[in-house]
Amino acid sequence: MALVVQKYGGSSVADAARIKRVAQRIVATKKAGNDVVVIVSAMGDTTDELLDLAQQVSPLPPGRELDMLLTAGERISMALLAMAIANLGHQARSFTGSQAGVITDSTHGKARIIDVTPGRIQEALNSGQIAIVAGFQGVSQDTKDITTLGRGGSDTTAVALAAALGADVCEIYTDVDGIFTADPRIVGAARQIPRISYEEAMEMAACGAKILHLRCVEYARRFDLPIHVRSSFSNKEGTWVVSVHNTDEGNEMEQPIISGVAHDRSEAKITVVGVPDKVGEAAAIFRTLADAEINIDMIVQNISAAATARTDISFTLPSADGTVAVTALKRIQEQIGFEKILFDDQIGKVSLVGAGMRSHPGVTAKFFGALADAGVNIEMISTSEIRISVIVGQNEVDAAVAAAHAAFDLDADQVEAVVYGGTGR
Amino acid sequence: MALVVQKYGGSSVADAARIKRVAQRIVATKKAGNDVVVIVSAMGDTTDELLDLAQQVSPLPPGRELDMLLTAGERISMALLAMAIANLGHQARSFTGSQAGVITDSTHGKARIIDVTPGRIQEALNSGQIAIVAGFQGVSQDTKDITTLGRGGSDTTAVALAAALGADVCEIYTDVDGIFTADPRIVGAARQIPRISYEEAMEMAACGAKILHLRCVEYARRFDLPIHVRSSFSNKEGTWVVSVHNTDEGNEMEQPIISGVAHDRSEAKITVVGVPDKVGEAAAIFRTLADAEINIDMIVQNISAAATARTDISFTLPSADGTVAVTALKRIQEQIGFEKILFDDQIGKVSLVGAGMRSHPGVTAKFFGALADAGVNIEMISTSEIRISVIVGQNEVDAAVAAAHAAFDLDADQVEAVVYGGTGR
Repeated sequence: MALVVQKYGGSSVADAARIKRVAQRIVATKKAGNDVVVIVSAMGDTTDELLDLAQQVSPLPPGRELDMLLTAGERISMALLAMAIANLGHQARSFTGSQAGVITDSTHGKARIIDVTPGRIQEALNSGQIAIVAGFQGVSQDTKDITTLGRGGSDTTAVALAAALGADVCEIYTDVDGIFTADPRIVGAARQIPRISYEEAMEMAACGAKILHLRCVEYARRFDLPIHVRSSFSNKEGTWVVSVHNTDEGNEMEQPIISGVAHDRSEAKITVVGVPDKVGEAAAIFRTLADAEINIDMIVQNISAAATARTDISFTLPSADGTVAVTALKRIQEQIGFEKILFDDQIGKVSLVGAGMRSHPGVTAKFFGALADAGVNIEMISTSEIRISVIVGQNEVDAAVAAAHAAFDLDADQVEAVVYGGTGR
Repeated sequence: MALVVQKYGGSSVADAARIKRVAQRIVATKKAGNDVVVIVSAMGDTTDELLDLAQQVSPLPPGRELDMLLTAGERISMALLAMAIANLGHQARSFTGSQAGVITDSTHGKARIIDVTPGRIQEALNSGQIAIVAGFQGVSQDTKDITTLGRGGSDTTAVALAAALGADVCEIYTDVDGIFTADPRIVGAARQIPRISYEEAMEMAACGAKILHLRCVEYARRFDLPIHVRSSFSNKEGTWVVSVHNTDEGNEMEQPIISGVAHDRSEAKITVVGVPDKVGEAAAIFRTLADAEINIDMIVQNISAAATARTDISFTLPSADGTVAVTALKRIQEQIGFEKILFDDQIGKVSLVGAGMRSHPGVTAKFFGALADAGVNIEMISTSEIRISVIVGQNEVDAAVAAAHAAFDLDADQVEAVVYGGTGR
């Protein structure tokens, strides 16, 4: 008997009909002889509707109360799901994040899980019940207030509970068949990836692939917990996110150089122009941004123009944080003595991700060549061991993704004719 | 500084605009120098919408899950109310029933409060905050599951918390100006009652007056906690429900015989025909009904017809329980040997309530006389120290209420010319 943790997102439980279908899938898993714990998000648009209500009563609602409000969403979906399962003749009990033992810090809106004590879940499993748990929420250790985990919170709940319970697998259900080599809406020939390492999945998530959140993959990696990303609309095998040892196992020869091409249109670029080229100036700029709790992604510093002893520093950040960042920087303009700030939110990031590029030279050259052939101009570059990201104009993102996807033989009709190699990365 | 507990029903917080208005009233109470605890129901139709969703996934949802579902309603309204108050520059914190220390038994859907431990509420008050508490809900002592209190649950929460916190008053806000001498929709001349004793308010509630629930008045009486029933749409004084010592104080001479006329169309009448007139037969019938958890209201047993040694037993019960009751009785028909069961849900109950009738003879005669003059036929009668109730045809309820209201000089234009007396009750 295995212990299976399943997570269903908001679109999988958007209405009564879908909840009933999900209930059938859960019961089928139970009937196959497994213990089952289910993590569920709020129904469809519930969270947006609640946020809209909040906006109507207060332009800046306190975080504690916003969390109290939003957690009503999962309470509704989890109770309905438990009822639907009961109606199929199986015993199910729903649990809030607090009841499930999801202990967090007190950062309302983006709390971090600091402990999981799933005593009540284990008890329910021991007595043969299916446990339904509210995703996205917990209770703060210090104040015993209700918290929410922020973006991707339900996936994180699922992985954290799966780890704490020693589950055999954490199944993340979504509305597509798994993780793809690129967004199928941009690249028609994009293929579903059968197996991918935690590291690659993390890079994909960090670079804008929306299926799995970075945080949840990080968590799974730490506990070496296999994640199975699959569709709630079919019984097809999805994408397994596993330890790199398992991805390589027995089929090392077949591993492609590139696992996929991710893209992200949610970032903006800020350039601080004419920064005096002195020790500590860049540090002062990024300290200011850190104090404003802004996450910086890519950073580029030009070589100082010898004549002026001044340099330009460019970086990318979430577009939504643009105003806060610019305001914070203007406050230190005089102190630092830079000339001006340029803000550009018409950018996009395109990333090649693949563990294979470690051992295959020439990937960068091929990537940049493909972009050049497609007439795409590169504004910034950043790399890791298993990723190359470039910033391009936002209206060039689609062309860049398609060009990279084709260049690295990821297109479905080419998959039988994968060609490795290159000439120096 | 007083401690004021306020309860707002679903219609008072039906939308964002109303929530903001309620927030202003709460802040005004706080600004007047009071500590304030607010109990709030779910917004408008939320509970019905959630029940509808439950019905869509399961025809007979488990009580535990139904409670989990329904409690999402107050979670939404209380968080929004706390936000609206914060937006007015005052500190407010919302608490679930569980967080507020409302401890109940495990009877899902109609749990009874067995303890109130409002430590977190007291803490919030001590630090100058306004506490917003979810009405209608608690947590079971044994299983730590979320429970709901059933009908009138939010009023009961308010009174229970007010008692536990030693509040000076529990204000119950509604959409009318208080308790009236009769339903103003039936009797245009009905007057608002300024002061009424717990006992009379309990009789009014038990007899169909919908403003206050029996359970909440019982609770307040036990702790001698003044209830102030008033409108959330005005600043008028409403109806004070207080100890009889306070109602009489200083104005005993002015106390009217009758406080009001209540009516109730939600009952049905069952007659068990031809019950053998032997010891224990009636007991067997009512034991059967008790085992089916049916609350019986009025009972009438005819004098046995000497020739047959058989009698008829009639009783009233909530119409909704009719089918269950008839089924339960049919099961013992052979054993008891009665002839048949008659079921009639086209009845109504009209009740005169007034502590004054204790000391004023002739009330019954006058009441029955008024009904006779109005052409209303009486089917059953029951009395208490301060109440006379009659069962009449459902389509005669309005006429009966109006006749009684006029006969006892309750009509607004007659109030200056109250005439006491009568000739034997």
